Amino acid sequence: MKFKGFFPVLAGLLLWLLGPPEGLDTHAYHLFVVFLTVIASLMVRAVPMATSVLAGLAFVVMAGILPLKSALMGYSDTTTWLVVIAFLIAGAVIETGLGRRISLLCISALGHTITGLGYALCLSELILGPVVPSNTARGGGILAPIVDSMSRTLGSSPTNYPEKAGRYLHLVGAHANLITAAMFLTGMAANPLVSKAALDIFQIQFDWLTWAKGGIVPGLIGLAGLPLLMRYLSPPTIDSIQPIREKIKEDIQWLGPWTRPEIITAATLGVMLVLWSTKPLHGWGTTTVALLGLVIILLSKTITWDQLVKNHKAWDALIWLGGLLTLANGLKDLGFIAWFGNHIENGLTGVAPLALLITLALIYFYSMYLFSMLTAHIAALTGTIFLVASGVELNPFLVVGVIAYFSNLCGCLTNYSTGPVIIYFGNGYVQPLAWFRIGFIVSIYHLVVWLGFGSIWWKLIGWL
Amino acid sequence: MKFKGFFPVLAGLLLWLLGPPEGLDTHAYHLFVVFLTVIASLMVRAVPMATSVLAGLAFVVMAGILPLKSALMGYSDTTTWLVVIAFLIAGAVIETGLGRRISLLCISALGHTITGLGYALCLSELILGPVVPSNTARGGGILAPIVDSMSRTLGSSPTNYPEKAGRYLHLVGAHANLITAAMFLTGMAANPLVSKAALDIFQIQFDWLTWAKGGIVPGLIGLAGLPLLMRYLSPPTIDSIQPIREKIKEDIQWLGPWTRPEIITAATLGVMLVLWSTKPLHGWGTTTVALLGLVIILLSKTITWDQLVKNHKAWDALIWLGGLLTLANGLKDLGFIAWFGNHIENGLTGVAPLALLITLALIYFYSMYLFSMLTAHIAALTGTIFLVASGVELNPFLVVGVIAYFSNLCGCLTNYSTGPVIIYFGNGYVQPLAWFRIGFIVSIYHLVVWLGFGSIWWKLIGWL
Repeated sequence: MKFKGFFPVLAGLLLWLLGPPEGLDTHAYHLFVVFLTVIASLMVRAVPMATSVLAGLAFVVMAGILPLKSALMGYSDTTTWLVVIAFLIAGAVIETGLGRRISLLCISALGHTITGLGYALCLSELILGPVVPSNTARGGGILAPIVDSMSRTLGSSPTNYPEKAGRYLHLVGAHANLITAAMFLTGMAANPLVSKAALDIFQIQFDWLTWAKGGIVPGLIGLAGLPLLMRYLSPPTIDSIQPIREKIKEDIQWLGPWTRPEIITAATLGVMLVLWSTKPLHGWGTTTVALLGLVIILLSKTITWDQLVKNHKAWDALIWLGGLLTLANGLKDLGFIAWFGNHIENGLTGVAPLALLITLALIYFYSMYLFSMLTAHIAALTGTIFLVASGVELNPFLVVGVIAYFSNLCGCLTNYSTGPVIIYFGNGYVQPLAWFRIGFIVSIYHLVVWLGFGSIWWKLIGWL
Repeated sequence: MKFKGFFPVLAGLLLWLLGPPEGLDTHAYHLFVVFLTVIASLMVRAVPMATSVLAGLAFVVMAGILPLKSALMGYSDTTTWLVVIAFLIAGAVIETGLGRRISLLCISALGHTITGLGYALCLSELILGPVVPSNTARGGGILAPIVDSMSRTLGSSPTNYPEKAGRYLHLVGAHANLITAAMFLTGMAANPLVSKAALDIFQIQFDWLTWAKGGIVPGLIGLAGLPLLMRYLSPPTIDSIQPIREKIKEDIQWLGPWTRPEIITAATLGVMLVLWSTKPLHGWGTTTVALLGLVIILLSKTITWDQLVKNHKAWDALIWLGGLLTLANGLKDLGFIAWFGNHIENGLTGVAPLALLITLALIYFYSMYLFSMLTAHIAALTGTIFLVASGVELNPFLVVGVIAYFSNLCGCLTNYSTGPVIIYFGNGYVQPLAWFRIGFIVSIYHLVVWLGFGSIWWKLIGWL
C-alpha cells in the first residue's frame, strides 16, 4: 500500500477514538466512521475501490457493527444488479461491433463538415447513452478510438497540427459523453447510486423514465449547442473533410452487412428502451427489464456466457457498488440518517428553499475539483446533500433531478474526472491548461442550459 | 440453443399447465416448476449453468411469482459469498505458484517409490483441500499437469506404456481429489449448498468445523488406503522412479527461494484454517474468515485486484449459485417445503430410521450415474433427501454428514462427474471402460470406509 493510503485509516482511527456525539447510537457512529474512511480512501486512491470497500465490510463484520448477513445485503440490491447487468450488456454492444457500426453510420450521415462531425459524435453518444451504461465503455471504448483515427485521417495528430481538427473533435467527444451520462439513469455506472439515495431519503422512485423525462430537454439543448460552442472555444482550422468521407465509406464497406449478433443486440436494446419507457403499462422495473435483455442475448447465443463472464468491469462494479450500498443502507437502518436529518432541520428555519437548492447544487458541482472520480464524488456527497435539502420545502424530484444531472456534468471541470475524459485527454491533442480553461467555460454553459432552460422544462413537468 | 435444450422447457410447460396438487399454493407450485425446469436444464447442459439460472430468475420475476428483491436474495447469501471468495483465494494459490510448490515439496518428501508418489498426491490434496475450494482448480489446475508431466518423465504416456506409471498416478490423483472434496466444506464449490439445505430443513449449522470433524477420520483412512487399492486395481509396472527424483529436484531449484507472495498467501491460509477451526473462541463464521483472508491478500498486494477480478470462475459461481439459492429459498418461503414435508411424514410411519438413511444414501450415491455434474446432483437431490429423512427419528448431523460426504465421493463412478475427473480422464491414460470398472470398485471401497469406519467415528462424536 502506498504511504498516502494510511491517511484515511489514521483519520478514521482518530474519529473512532473521539466517540459519538450526544444522541447518536454508538453502532451508527462507528459505521459512519467506517463509511467516511472508505470514502476517503476512494478519494486518495491508494488501493482499488473494491479493495477499500471489501476491507470496510470485513471490518464492519469483525467489529460486530453489522452481522454478516446485513453486510452482504448490498449484493442483492436491485440497484447493484442494474449496474452489473448493464455492464454486461455494454460488453455485448462492444464485442458484437454494434457500437462501432452505429458510430460510423452517424458519422456517415452527419459528418459533411467538421461541425457535422461534432454533431455526429453527439448523435452517437445520444443513441448509445441509454444502453451502454458505462460512460467509459461508450466514450473510451467505442468513440475515442474512432475520434483519434478520424483526426489522424484529417492530418491532425497530437504533434502535428492538433488544432487543425483533433483538438476540436476530442473536446466535443469528451463533453458530449458527460451530457449523455447525465441524461439517462443508465448513462453512467454510478447513476443508480443517486436513485438509491433518493429512495432512502425522500422515499421517491427516481426511476429510468423519471430520470430521462427531466433530463431529455436540457440534455438535447446542451448537445445541440455543444459543437457550436466548441467551434468558438477551440476553433478547428481545417476546410475540407473529404478524406474522412472516403475513409468512413471504406470502414463501413469493410464491416459488410449487419451480422446476426448485431441485429439481435440492436433489437434487444430496442425492446429494453421500449419497456423502460412504458413501465406504467407492465410494471416491470428497470432492473427486471435489463435482466430480460441479458437473458435474450444469452439464450440467442449472441454472446456466449464464457465471453460475457470475462467482462470483469461488471464484477468490479458489483463488488464496490454492492459494498457501498451496504454501508449507505446501514447508516439509514442504524438511525444515523434520521439523527443527522433532525439536526439539519433545526438549523434551516427561515432559509429560502430555492436559494438553498442553488447553493447546494453549485457547491456540489464545483467540489468536483477536489475529487479524482465522479463515482467517489457521488458516493460521498449525494446522501448528505439530499438530507440537507430535505430540511426545507422543495419538490424532491427537483432536488434529485438537479443533483442527478450535475453528478455527471461536473465532470467537465478537470482532465481526471472520469474514464472517458482521462482517455480523450490522454490522446494528447489538448494541453492541460487549455482543458481546464475550456472545462470551466463549459461548466458555465451547463449551468445556463440546465438551470435556465432546464427550470422552464421542470416547471412544465411539475417539478418546480 | 441445441435441440435438447427445449426438453426441460417443454416438460416445465406441461407441469405448469397441469396445475398444483391439492393443498399447495399456486405460487409455490409455479416456483417448483421453474426450479425443476432449471435443474433439468442443468442436467441436459444445452446452455451454461448461469444462463439457465438467469433465465429462471427472469421468468420468476416477470411472471410475478417472486418480486425482484426476493429473486436477488441469493446474491447476498453468506453461502454464495463463501464460494465466491474461496474461488478468488484459490486463484491466488495458483497464481502465486504456492499450489505448485506445495505439490512439488510433497512429491520430494514422499515420492521415493511409485506408491510413494501416490501418497504424495494424496498429501498434496489433503494440504490444498481445505483452502482451494474449487476441486477443479486443485485437481485440474494444480495437480493434473504435474501428474501428466511426472508420467512422461517416467517414460509413460497415453500412447507409450500408459500402464507403466501414468495410468496408476492419474487414477490415484483423480480419486484422491474426490476424497478431499468430501472432507471439507471448502473442498468443493457446491459443498456449501449442502450446509445451506441442512440449515433450511433441519435448522442446524453444519459449518466448516462440523463438516471437517465428521469427515476427517474416514477421509484420512480413505486416503491412506487409496494408493494401495489402486496398486491392486491398476498395477504400475515400473521399478525405479529415479528420473522423477532428479526432475523434481530441478523443478524445486528452478522455483528458487519462497517469494513474498507465496509466504503471505501461505500465512493467510494458515490464519484462515486456525480461525475456521476455532470458531467457538471468536464467533466469526466461515464466510467472515474467508473475507478476512481475501482482504489480507489484497491489502498486502500479494495479488492485485486487477488480477483477482479476472478470475471469472468466481463470478460464474456467483451467478449460478446465487440464483439456485434464491429458488431453493423461495420454495421454503412460499411453503412448498412444508407441504412436501407433511406428505412425506404421513407415509413414513413404521420405517426403521437407519435402514431408511442407508437406502437414501445408496440411492443418492448411485443416482450420480444419471448426472453429468456433481453440482447439479447436489442441487437437485439434497433438499428432497433431507426432507424425506426428516420424517423419521435420526440425528440430523448424521443425515447431513452422510449426504455431504457422499455428494463428492459419488463422483468416482463415471468419467464425466466433475471438472478434475474430466481432466484426469482426458489426459488419456485410462480407457473409458476401465475407468467405469475401477470407479465402481472404488465406490464399494468408499461405502466400506465411510459407512464402516465412519459409523464407528460418528458414534464416538455422538452423531449415531
